[in-house]
Amino acid sequence: MFKVNENYQKLPGSYLFSTIAKKVNEYQDAHPDKELIRLGIGDVTQPLAPAVIDALHKAVDEMGQAETFRGYAPDLGYDFLRNAIAENDYKARGCSIGPNEIFVSDGAKSDSANIQEIFDVSDRVAVCDPVYPVYVDSNVMAGRTGTYDPDTGMWSDVIYMPCVKENGFVPDFPEQTPDLIYLCLPNNPTGTTLTKDQLQGWVDYANRVGAVILYDGAYEAYITEDNVPHTIYECDGAVTCAIEMKSFSKNAGFTGVRLGYTVVPKELKCGEVSLNAMWARRHGTKFNGAPYIVQRAGEAVYSDAGKAQIKDLVAYYMWNASAIRSGLTEAGFEIYGGVNAPYIWLATPDGMSSWEFFDYLLDTANVVGTPGSGFGPSGEGYFRLTAFGTHENTMAALERIKAL
Amino acid sequence: MFKVNENYQKLPGSYLFSTIAKKVNEYQDAHPDKELIRLGIGDVTQPLAPAVIDALHKAVDEMGQAETFRGYAPDLGYDFLRNAIAENDYKARGCSIGPNEIFVSDGAKSDSANIQEIFDVSDRVAVCDPVYPVYVDSNVMAGRTGTYDPDTGMWSDVIYMPCVKENGFVPDFPEQTPDLIYLCLPNNPTGTTLTKDQLQGWVDYANRVGAVILYDGAYEAYITEDNVPHTIYECDGAVTCAIEMKSFSKNAGFTGVRLGYTVVPKELKCGEVSLNAMWARRHGTKFNGAPYIVQRAGEAVYSDAGKAQIKDLVAYYMWNASAIRSGLTEAGFEIYGGVNAPYIWLATPDGMSSWEFFDYLLDTANVVGTPGSGFGPSGEGYFRLTAFGTHENTMAALERIKAL
Repeated sequence: MFKVNENYQKLPGSYLFSTIAKKVNEYQDAHPDKELIRLGIGDVTQPLAPAVIDALHKAVDEMGQAETFRGYAPDLGYDFLRNAIAENDYKARGCSIGPNEIFVSDGAKSDSANIQEIFDVSDRVAVCDPVYPVYVDSNVMAGRTGTYDPDTGMWSDVIYMPCVKENGFVPDFPEQTPDLIYLCLPNNPTGTTLTKDQLQGWVDYANRVGAVILYDGAYEAYITEDNVPHTIYECDGAVTCAIEMKSFSKNAGFTGVRLGYTVVPKELKCGEVSLNAMWARRHGTKFNGAPYIVQRAGEAVYSDAGKAQIKDLVAYYMWNASAIRSGLTEAGFEIYGGVNAPYIWLATPDGMSSWEFFDYLLDTANVVGTPGSGFGPSGEGYFRLTAFGTHENTMAALERIKAL
Repeated sequence: MFKVNENYQKLPGSYLFSTIAKKVNEYQDAHPDKELIRLGIGDVTQPLAPAVIDALHKAVDEMGQAETFRGYAPDLGYDFLRNAIAENDYKARGCSIGPNEIFVSDGAKSDSANIQEIFDVSDRVAVCDPVYPVYVDSNVMAGRTGTYDPDTGMWSDVIYMPCVKENGFVPDFPEQTPDLIYLCLPNNPTGTTLTKDQLQGWVDYANRVGAVILYDGAYEAYITEDNVPHTIYECDGAVTCAIEMKSFSKNAGFTGVRLGYTVVPKELKCGEVSLNAMWARRHGTKFNGAPYIVQRAGEAVYSDAGKAQIKDLVAYYMWNASAIRSGLTEAGFEIYGGVNAPYIWLATPDGMSSWEFFDYLLDTANVVGTPGSGFGPSGEGYFRLTAFGTHENTMAALERIKAL
C-alpha cells in the first residue's frame, strides 16, 4: 500500500493567503452590501505597461505564423532575456553576473519554494521572523523543520531570527549556526530593509560559517535610499555564498503574467559540486521554460520605453505607500516600512492580536489587511498593509481607518 | 557547512534531450553546410490555431486596461478553464470528474516531475521501460531509486516493466509490488498503447495492491482506434487509484506556451488523507498559477472553432506519422507505433545500438532522432522518430533514409 509524504500533514492550517481569502469571502457573502477594500495580499492593480503589451501582441503574432512560431524554450531561458537581465540588473550595477548564471522561471514564488530541493534534508534553515510563509512551508514539506509547536507557532528545527521594532527589524546572527539563510530584502512583510554595510555583514558571516544565503529580491525596484543595495552581489564575496531570486511581479506588475529568475553564481560550490549545475539539472528535469510570449514581455521591461513606464508604475505604488504612512501616522498608529518597499507594517493598537485587528478592520472599516502573526510568531502584534491598491481605494481605506 | 542533495550526484549524465541538443550542435558546428532535419525531440512545428491566437490577443488587451487587468490567478486555475476541461475532457466521455478535481499548471512536464513529492520516500516506483526520463529522474532527485548500475542502466529500487516487441509493448504486472505506477498512454517513446480492457486490468491491479497509477495522457488527442481509452477514468474504479496528467502541448501545440493540468479525484485517499487536498496544498505553496493569457488560450482550445482547428493540427501530424510508417516499412525497417501516437518506434538495423544508429543517421542522413536506450535499458536496439516536423521535412528525411 502506498504511503503519502507525512510532512504535509504537519503543516498547520492552510496557506496564509488562502485562509484570508476564505475569511474575506465568508464576510462578503454574509454582507453583500459592503464594499471591501483589499490591501492584504501583495497583488498589483495597475495594468501592464504599454511597452509590455506591445511586446506581448508582437510575440503572439509570431506564434501564429509558421516562420516565427516557437516551440519549447531553452530550459534556462531565452538568451535575449538572460542577456537583458545580466546587462541591466547586474553589469549596470558593477556586478559580474553572466547570462549563464541566470535561470529564467515562472516566478520567484516557485523558485523560492523549489530552491531548497538542491540542498540536503539535514541542512539547518534560518529565517527572519516574521517571514514570507513559502520559505518555511516548502521546508516543512521537505522534512527539514522538525515538529511544530502550536503554542509558540514555531518549528523545532528552524532557526528563527526575530525582526521586531526592538532591533530595528535587523536580524541578529543566530546562536545556532545555520546552513541556509533566507533573507528577503527589502523585506516582505515588514517593508524594512538592510543597508549595504549590514548586508555585507551577513555575506561575511555566511562565508565564515559555510552557509548559503537564499536572497529574495522581489521588491528591489522599490528602493529609494542610496545606502540600500539593489542586489546582494553588490557585496564582496556574495558570489561564493548567495543565490538571488528576482521577480517581475512587483516592478512590472507581472503577478498574473508569471516571470522571475534566479541567479546561481558559478563560484558557488559545495566542495567540487557546482550549485549552478545542480539548479540547471533541476530546471532541465522538472521545468520546461517560461512561455516565449512572457519572456518577450520580460525583455520589454528592459527597453527604454519599458524602463520609463515601469518607473511610473513603481512611483504610483510608492505614492500610495507615502499616503498610507502619513495617513496612519495621523491616525495615531505606530508604523514601519513603506520607504524602500510597498509594504507598511503597523503595530496593532490597544494590545490587539494580529488576527483580532484583522477581524476588527474587516468588520468596522471593511478593509482587508494581513495579520502579522501569519508571517511568524514575532509578527504577532503587527499588521501589514500593501500599497498595491488603486490610489482611490487606498485613500478611501485610510479615510475609513482614520474614522475608527 | 551546508550540504547539497546527494541524490543529484547519482544522476548519470545529463537530461537526455540536453545531451542530444549538445551532440547536434557540435555536429552542426563542425558541418555548417549540412541541413539537419530534426525528428528527435517531441516539439511541434505548426503555429498556434487562429482561435488560440485571437484569445491571446484579447487577453493581452485585457491586461493593458485597468478595468480588465488580472493579477494573481486562483492557485488551482481559473474556473472558466477548469469548467471547460471538466465538460469537454470528462463529462463528454461519461466520466464524473468535477472542476474541483482539476488543477491547472504550466505543463505536464512540471506536474509529472512534481507529483512524486506528495508520496513517501519509501514508496516503490514502477515504470515502463523504455519511459519518458522525467519520471525516473524526478524520483532519483527525491532519493527514491536506490543506486545506479551503469552496466545495466538500472536503479536498484526501481521496478522496471519492459515494453518490447516480444510482449507487444504491453507491460506485465511486476513480480515486486509497486506503490506508484507510471503509465504514459499512448506511450512516449514507443508510440504504442493499451486497449481499454488492458488498462482496466491495470486499474483493477492498482486497486487490489494499493498502488497509485500516475497516468500521463499527454498524447490522448492522437488516438484513432475505438478500443483505446481517452482517459483512465473511463475505467471502473480509476477514481480510487489514479492521478491523470494532461498537456496542451501536443494537441494544441502549446510546447512554448506552457499549459497542462492534473486530475486528482476526491475519492483518491491514503487512509483519511485526501491526495486532492495535498496537491492543492502543494499548488498553493509552490506555484502561483498559469498566466491568465495562457489560461484564456487554453479555454479557446475548447471553443467550437478551436476544436476544429486543433483537429486539423493533429491530423497534419498524423499525416506525417502515416508517411513515416509507410516510408520506413518500404525502406525495410521494423516499426511500431504511429497509429494512436505521433511517435514511430523502430528496431535499429544490423544489430546497431541505439546511439550507434543515432550517430549513423546524423552522419549519413543528417536526420536527428532519439536513441531508444536514452529512455531506459529495454529501449536499447530501438530508435524514436517523431511526426511533429513539417510535412516537407518529414518527407525529405524519409527520402534520405530510404537512400541509405
